[in-house]
Amino acid sequence: MPPGNVIGVDLGGTKLLAGAVDSGLVVHHRAWRASRERDQAELLDDLVDAVDELRAAMDWNVDAVGFGIPCLIDQEQGRALMAVNLPIADLAFRDVMSERLGIPVYIDNDANVAALVEQRFGAAQGAENVVMLTIGTGIGGGVVVNGESYRGGSGAGVELGHMVIDMDGPRCQGNCPNRGCLEAVASGTAMIREAERIARENPGTPLAIELERRGTLPGPLITELAHDGDAGARQALEHVGRRLGVGISSLVNIFEPEVVVIGGGVIGAGDLLLEPAREEFRARVLPVLADRPIVPARFGEEAGMLGAACLALDGQVRRTTA
Amino acid sequence: MPPGNVIGVDLGGTKLLAGAVDSGLVVHHRAWRASRERDQAELLDDLVDAVDELRAAMDWNVDAVGFGIPCLIDQEQGRALMAVNLPIADLAFRDVMSERLGIPVYIDNDANVAALVEQRFGAAQGAENVVMLTIGTGIGGGVVVNGESYRGGSGAGVELGHMVIDMDGPRCQGNCPNRGCLEAVASGTAMIREAERIARENPGTPLAIELERRGTLPGPLITELAHDGDAGARQALEHVGRRLGVGISSLVNIFEPEVVVIGGGVIGAGDLLLEPAREEFRARVLPVLADRPIVPARFGEEAGMLGAACLALDGQVRRTTA
Repeated sequence: MPPGNVIGVDLGGTKLLAGAVDSGLVVHHRAWRASRERDQAELLDDLVDAVDELRAAMDWNVDAVGFGIPCLIDQEQGRALMAVNLPIADLAFRDVMSERLGIPVYIDNDANVAALVEQRFGAAQGAENVVMLTIGTGIGGGVVVNGESYRGGSGAGVELGHMVIDMDGPRCQGNCPNRGCLEAVASGTAMIREAERIARENPGTPLAIELERRGTLPGPLITELAHDGDAGARQALEHVGRRLGVGISSLVNIFEPEVVVIGGGVIGAGDLLLEPAREEFRARVLPVLADRPIVPARFGEEAGMLGAACLALDGQVRRTTA
Repeated sequence: MPPGNVIGVDLGGTKLLAGAVDSGLVVHHRAWRASRERDQAELLDDLVDAVDELRAAMDWNVDAVGFGIPCLIDQEQGRALMAVNLPIADLAFRDVMSERLGIPVYIDNDANVAALVEQRFGAAQGAENVVMLTIGTGIGGGVVVNGESYRGGSGAGVELGHMVIDMDGPRCQGNCPNRGCLEAVASGTAMIREAERIARENPGTPLAIELERRGTLPGPLITELAHDGDAGARQALEHVGRRLGVGISSLVNIFEPEVVVIGGGVIGAGDLLLEPAREEFRARVLPVLADRPIVPARFGEEAGMLGAACLALDGQVRRTTA
């Protein structure tokens, strides 16, 4: 029996994307939810709501749901232990959601599932050792070692975004007490902060006019302005890209992956982000490792959602063959 | 047939320690060599010389030699690829030394072998997931995952010392082109630099008097003065210890080891180094991981040498049972 059809859900710090996906990894429907100032109960309601929307839209049964969560996870118990950017703490996520949805639920770290789908079918296809960073509100990390997810000593996940690159730098966000983490200086949040700083210092520029009009600068707008050639927006992307390159030099010295994949919401910026990252990386990494490529996720912002679907499909295969 | 007797050699950036070790890991003789301004040929001569000294001193046969080298290594070929602090590059180390010594030779990264012996018999006994840092001239890193050495994607080793913690910090040393690596700010070399700075700023203090008399401050002297209560020496150790704690917070967020072991020449400083490291670590690491202990290597400065002996003993067991 083939594993059938599933829903993959990528839960980010400021939005969630769910997709109804068949066993050939074709996406039939998508559902989005923007975040609201929510607590754990509202967050779970939003998840159920998005899944229900997809189930109602489909004319086939959904066999299982996979969730990619930016969170430390106890795999054995299916518990979400702590998240830096979400109101989740010590929650029996798998059991609670499985009870509410009435079908099997699989959970893993969002960047882990993104890394897995990129390694199997995407930008890292053919590589056995991969480091992936998913850059959005925060920075998630996924590591594939010899073709399998590496989840750290206690299996809870590798928090690559919470590696310090600037020890006296800005306070990190959410529940991370550190300073100068990669997430604090190279996430979408950091890019917005940098763009707003540049806008305030350069009144009359497109970036400044947009900031005045909206009161804030959304990430996709910064990327759009940068693609249109706006100097300030490009400067913000370069600032973040260089810091990203510093972090990647550390990660390649540690893990020696064959390839580094960058995904998440920020990757719409493409080479405007990745070129400064590559330049900084090559100037810093141990010379014998300087040839490792840094590439965008093939599945772009959907890598997490498709990875979560893969997780559910894998889980169903194990279930039916067990 | 028991694996017999071996020699373990720990090759550091400024000294080498060799030990004649039996299968019960008892050390019968030791040989030291200080470094000289040497090239690759002289370095190999020193190694052969130290091994020969031990063989001459023993009344039993030496079956094999294990080398721990601060170097990226191609395990399959037995090649030393590149070292940050030694004049070794793309050298068929295992074959060359085996030919010169006339017995089997085994090689691995120095911090990897140190981590292995601490995990089996030392400070990390019972733990399945361990991060070890060996701090001397440079900083080496060893990672044990599920009871086995993790050597990175290409098997060459995890260069934990070349993880950036201060992106605009001092240039790293030797063949590393990076800035603000852990090695650049928390190695024995960094401790000496910091102590000399403090000495110059505080004329008349014991540290300053020693610096004037000798022209430099050797690491062991700084540690000795710190143990005697000298404020400047203690300040230098605290400076380095705090940076060490920053790096450990990153490594624990990434690998989630059950325990972090600190070895190498600097560990003679004990809690004068480790307490500031622990304090900084606990303030920075993700809260759910703050309980992970940071402990000194049980085998202290000899962890690398004993680990290299273990490597040779393991190799002989595989050889005789193959």
